[in-house]
Amino acid sequence: MRNVEIKGYGYYVPEETVEFDGQIRHRIPSGSKETQLSMAVEAALAALKKASIDIKDIDCIVSASAVGIQPIPCTAALIHEQIAKGSSIPAMDINTTCTSFVAAFDVISYLIDSGRYNNVLLISSEKASSGLNPKQKESYELFGDGAVAVVLSRCNDGSSGVIFGKQKTWSEGAHDTEIRGGLTGLIPAHYSEGPEEYCFDMKGLKVLKLAGRKLPKFFKEFQKESGYTIDDIDMVVPHQASKALGMIMPLLDIPSEKYIDIVPQYGNMVSAAIPHAFIWAVENGRIRKGDTVLLIGTAAGLTANALLIKY
Amino acid sequence: MRNVEIKGYGYYVPEETVEFDGQIRHRIPSGSKETQLSMAVEAALAALKKASIDIKDIDCIVSASAVGIQPIPCTAALIHEQIAKGSSIPAMDINTTCTSFVAAFDVISYLIDSGRYNNVLLISSEKASSGLNPKQKESYELFGDGAVAVVLSRCNDGSSGVIFGKQKTWSEGAHDTEIRGGLTGLIPAHYSEGPEEYCFDMKGLKVLKLAGRKLPKFFKEFQKESGYTIDDIDMVVPHQASKALGMIMPLLDIPSEKYIDIVPQYGNMVSAAIPHAFIWAVENGRIRKGDTVLLIGTAAGLTANALLIKY
Repeated sequence: MRNVEIKGYGYYVPEETVEFDGQIRHRIPSGSKETQLSMAVEAALAALKKASIDIKDIDCIVSASAVGIQPIPCTAALIHEQIAKGSSIPAMDINTTCTSFVAAFDVISYLIDSGRYNNVLLISSEKASSGLNPKQKESYELFGDGAVAVVLSRCNDGSSGVIFGKQKTWSEGAHDTEIRGGLTGLIPAHYSEGPEEYCFDMKGLKVLKLAGRKLPKFFKEFQKESGYTIDDIDMVVPHQASKALGMIMPLLDIPSEKYIDIVPQYGNMVSAAIPHAFIWAVENGRIRKGDTVLLIGTAAGLTANALLIKY
Repeated sequence: MRNVEIKGYGYYVPEETVEFDGQIRHRIPSGSKETQLSMAVEAALAALKKASIDIKDIDCIVSASAVGIQPIPCTAALIHEQIAKGSSIPAMDINTTCTSFVAAFDVISYLIDSGRYNNVLLISSEKASSGLNPKQKESYELFGDGAVAVVLSRCNDGSSGVIFGKQKTWSEGAHDTEIRGGLTGLIPAHYSEGPEEYCFDMKGLKVLKLAGRKLPKFFKEFQKESGYTIDDIDMVVPHQASKALGMIMPLLDIPSEKYIDIVPQYGNMVSAAIPHAFIWAVENGRIRKGDTVLLIGTAAGLTANALLIKY
């Protein structure tokens, strides 16, 4: 077990909601001063407060969001400017799209366990509503905005830690979920030639089929390699990918009482979805300190990440 | 020392050059089929070949570029699609802008040393020419395109390794080097209102002043914490930031024979600049197997990374 604990967490979800057939999505309304950056900052400050730690004692700021704020510099540097200006805390982005939080938690746990860093502030913030295509009903109605931050700290008494992490990427799904335009592949100068190229584009059924084909084996391997079966796990926090969660979880033999599903209330908050559902579960008594918790999800790529922690 | 070796390397630099006052820059010409992705793929395949390793034996593909190819999915997944389709190798992006290669090498060395991964393919590819502003002479004449890849492998005999790594970020410089538009901060839909907002923008003198003020202390601390002084280091490979390299290195008391400067021949290849200068030094006999080598540089942020390796 890698000696890391979640010392504190914070989140920010826009108050404004839109509703589609009873499904609620929190989204920044046009004209609001809320941005991807402001949400990241609110979540980060709340996490620092909850952890009772001063920003001066943070050794690294990691942004783990799917989409950045600017192409340059990295998102972590822009968050740094708001909460750590004048300090020299290193800032870095880690990205596997929707599972960025889980991948970054996994990677950073090695740096904390080895003693490189004692306290890392990890933030996932997404303004998905920036890039939705109203003509693509399925994805247009799915996403929500929001941000989550956690303080990951060295845990010396063995009470908390990272038990096992695993990632896989199957790039036959690389174009099933994408935003093509905005960077070097399709530069912003060509925007007027095809604005939809700069919007989120999801082939939902293809993603679902590929995930349905790959995930059961992935999760079987995970259980075998980690030595933990679903019976040893207290709660599963899956990526809140879509309403299809209820179809995917049975394929993994995860019973309905053992996973968190808040898609009806929040939708898919991209990289913030897994940590937000985790916090929701903690605050609603579904996860308790000491529980063995599995964070698991798929991301554009197609990527799957799973991370088993003792909370 | 973390047990990691550079088992092989590869690079791709476009043949086409432009010249500014005798300074040569390799850039993808308009109409060429070369892209950020094609360069990444060429470099990756060359690195695999040089390492005599099959893609099947790679445990993780990491893209460490400043600017991505698409907002979604991450760049590593798109590279995966070209060289590892059909496999399930995990793909991930790590980003600290210009020093992404050094930061990712540093981070990944923990995962290799701990046994999580045995062989990691690390790629930095940049098509800087995509986003240059012809009206900003200083940056317009500075950048070059290109890609570099290395295979990082477990080294069990202690002959190679990572000796010490350090990063700092000073966000008072967050807006001295940036591309503001293209992602959520300034979405592509507003392109026509101010195309320059989507171009690279550098306040060169401000960056130079901030780096000049911060780097000497950073490098002093690095030497103290690592226990290595400049006398123990065989060669320094600095970020090929600009012609000002000759002004910055003396501030760090690094003598001219002890660092690589190929800015006149290649300019600033963004995240590919440090690993490209490293390979150039190896191929030109300036760095030999077993040498103690310092990779060091600054990035938008302002971030500084330094990584001391035994090659």
